Amino acid sequence: MAQKGSNSMEEFLARAVDAAKNAGQIIRSGFYETKNVEHKGQVDLVTETDKACEDLIFNFLKLHYPDHKFIGEETTAAYGATELTDEPTWIVDPLDGTTNFVHGFPFVCVSIGLTIGRIPTVGVVYNPIMDELFTAIRGKGAFLNAKPIKVSSQSELLKSLLATEAGTKRDKSTLDVSTNRINSLLFKVRSLRMSGSCALNLCGVACGRLDLFYEIGFGGPWDIAAGAVIVTEAGGVVFDPSGKDFDITSQRIAASNPLLKDAFVEALQG
Amino acid sequence: MAQKGSNSMEEFLARAVDAAKNAGQIIRSGFYETKNVEHKGQVDLVTETDKACEDLIFNFLKLHYPDHKFIGEETTAAYGATELTDEPTWIVDPLDGTTNFVHGFPFVCVSIGLTIGRIPTVGVVYNPIMDELFTAIRGKGAFLNAKPIKVSSQSELLKSLLATEAGTKRDKSTLDVSTNRINSLLFKVRSLRMSGSCALNLCGVACGRLDLFYEIGFGGPWDIAAGAVIVTEAGGVVFDPSGKDFDITSQRIAASNPLLKDAFVEALQG
Repeated sequence: MAQKGSNSMEEFLARAVDAAKNAGQIIRSGFYETKNVEHKGQVDLVTETDKACEDLIFNFLKLHYPDHKFIGEETTAAYGATELTDEPTWIVDPLDGTTNFVHGFPFVCVSIGLTIGRIPTVGVVYNPIMDELFTAIRGKGAFLNAKPIKVSSQSELLKSLLATEAGTKRDKSTLDVSTNRINSLLFKVRSLRMSGSCALNLCGVACGRLDLFYEIGFGGPWDIAAGAVIVTEAGGVVFDPSGKDFDITSQRIAASNPLLKDAFVEALQG
Repeated sequence: MAQKGSNSMEEFLARAVDAAKNAGQIIRSGFYETKNVEHKGQVDLVTETDKACEDLIFNFLKLHYPDHKFIGEETTAAYGATELTDEPTWIVDPLDGTTNFVHGFPFVCVSIGLTIGRIPTVGVVYNPIMDELFTAIRGKGAFLNAKPIKVSSQSELLKSLLATEAGTKRDKSTLDVSTNRINSLLFKVRSLRMSGSCALNLCGVACGRLDLFYEIGFGGPWDIAAGAVIVTEAGGVVFDPSGKDFDITSQRIAASNPLLKDAFVEALQG
């Protein structure tokens, strides 16, 4: 067990899990409440839940790690982008899957990642509705509810289950490129899933429920900071959809097991 | 309580629930086993689970209702299509979401519907992984785990959550039509989900998690017989994607709340 103040990776993870579970309670109560309020109330409930969860997580982690940096979806929206440095940085999406949250679709989660030297090093993704907690520390494996997980052993694209998202942009050129890519990929894979949560898609690859995932144009590093280390520690690979190295600030990501990477990159080029 | 032999709708439902729960146990054990067998073994596991569940459900219902008719995915695959008549007919998908089953993606279910005079009259959809039991009797409401459910009250297409599936056909013209339709719809709705289970998509509409669902070219009436009555009893509408009346044998379905139907039909025309 890590001792208090030891600042070990295990301690970072334990704190992040505490924060995620506490935020999860707020999400869970809101999740079952959305159906009872009218639309305007739903929008407020999302905003309030998002804000309450981010405050809770940041306050808790800042108390323990006052010298660390913090990047969050809500604060970035309010104060503009924060530059990612080499210093220990907590990158947080307090509520990934907000559209699912409003509709009561059970793919919602808290995502808390810690980068050190810009490398995703600790990751926690918690789905409070399905009570699934995904965790990883760089070099120490990935876990779902404390049991080790690993990516699938599928080696054939044609038998692979792919996940992506339609995204939030609705301009014609973005949507056309996006649906043309989906069209092209559907000839090459077994089937397609869209869950509405980028972080949970990454965890799906990590535990082998999904073989392939890509998304281009998601919100920011908070969607992937935790998931990236969870995939890697489950034996998977995270890369740019072009096949180049993954860049946490680029809003472009692909993930798979190592056997599928080359064929997946080729398929993604159309 | 319905008495044995009374052949009341409540008794039909209770028997169907028993059958679905028993089949659900078989699915659940297979679901957590797929990761431990190699691919050939996975294919066998699906076939065996599908067959074991259909045998269990049909044997159980035939014992109680020897004069009823039966239509199932497995028997149809083996013996060809069975004509739907006015007689009481049990229409069963023993394992909806087989690709999800193989991959361990938690959207799998048993779907048991009873038509009388070709009208979906009793419906049971059971997801044994998430332990969600959807039930309905015509004229008596729809329920999720015994609590009443209703469709969403959303009236604006642009704020609606849509579900569909990429389907299993991979010829160019089918896929092009399918992705063009998705492209066109993405300009008009909030977001898109693909869960991989037609029956669970219908139940998603019934309980308001989804606002809109359509699928063209699914397997057969077993995918929708139960879901159709569950949607209708939850206050929703089931119709052909063209806006015409729903035909259970047509492999075409759309579902929504009544407020969205006209705009949805218009959007589906492209």
